[in-house]
Amino acid sequence: MSGAGSYFLDDLRVGQTFETAGYTVDADAIREFAGRFDPQPFHLDEQAARGTVFAGLAASGWHTAAITMRLLVDGGLPFSGGLIGAGAEISWPNPVRPGDVLSVASEIVDLRPSGSKPDRGWATVRSETRTADGTVVQTLLARLLVFRRPTAVTA
Amino acid sequence: MSGAGSYFLDDLRVGQTFETAGYTVDADAIREFAGRFDPQPFHLDEQAARGTVFAGLAASGWHTAAITMRLLVDGGLPFSGGLIGAGAEISWPNPVRPGDVLSVASEIVDLRPSGSKPDRGWATVRSETRTADGTVVQTLLARLLVFRRPTAVTA
Repeated sequence: MSGAGSYFLDDLRVGQTFETAGYTVDADAIREFAGRFDPQPFHLDEQAARGTVFAGLAASGWHTAAITMRLLVDGGLPFSGGLIGAGAEISWPNPVRPGDVLSVASEIVDLRPSGSKPDRGWATVRSETRTADGTVVQTLLARLLVFRRPTAVTA
Repeated sequence: MSGAGSYFLDDLRVGQTFETAGYTVDADAIREFAGRFDPQPFHLDEQAARGTVFAGLAASGWHTAAITMRLLVDGGLPFSGGLIGAGAEISWPNPVRPGDVLSVASEIVDLRPSGSKPDRGWATVRSETRTADGTVVQTLLARLLVFRRPTAVTA
């Protein structure tokens, strides 16, 4: 089980950056995810995918989103209490191909305490998921619940 | 394999609505998805989840997103050429619990032809994922590539 890091809201600042490790996406994983959640030809079959706008097998965008979450939970965004998202804007500017090694670069773009609950606040985080050659395959602007350091709340 | 419906851009209108069938989410599926993509206590273990903001086992938001996609691909949004998203805004206003039966209600909110490619255009679609009692567990505002009816293009 992963996901609980050491950063409280009080430890974060706008402009702070975080990087993840890499995650290799192979064709079997692309097809397996698609078979379960996004069974369309361009995510399931290399031959069938050639005649589509993807011009070859490509991962479901929701698979890319799920992999991004895994990378962030595995230390890529080490928030105390874990990663709890209220919502996000997401885009997929380029397809993910079999063999791509994805990693995620994140930056804190906004921080604000909750108006009603003194023990928590919100962090807005921009995360770019990239292939090894730097191609951006997903952008994510997420609003995450972040807890305040207990000592900061009682002080 | 699913996903190819009969609707071209020319067949859609703003305000048009679509509904999906239901999809039951059980605790094993919640834990299995989380183990792979979002291994945090509140998605993995009922006991551990009780002491968190979720106050009980809840599905990963990305699991809810993936289920929503499956429902849309399985006839919930029957676009010719399939469902190809460029990006979306997503929010998770309420948790998904074991046993919830999810369905998706979609509405076309904007339609526009491509400025550069006469064979296609963009549909903006708002999709609400709801439990059987009508609780909204996800909102999705997605920008989807939609093809024009070939006869409409050549005419």
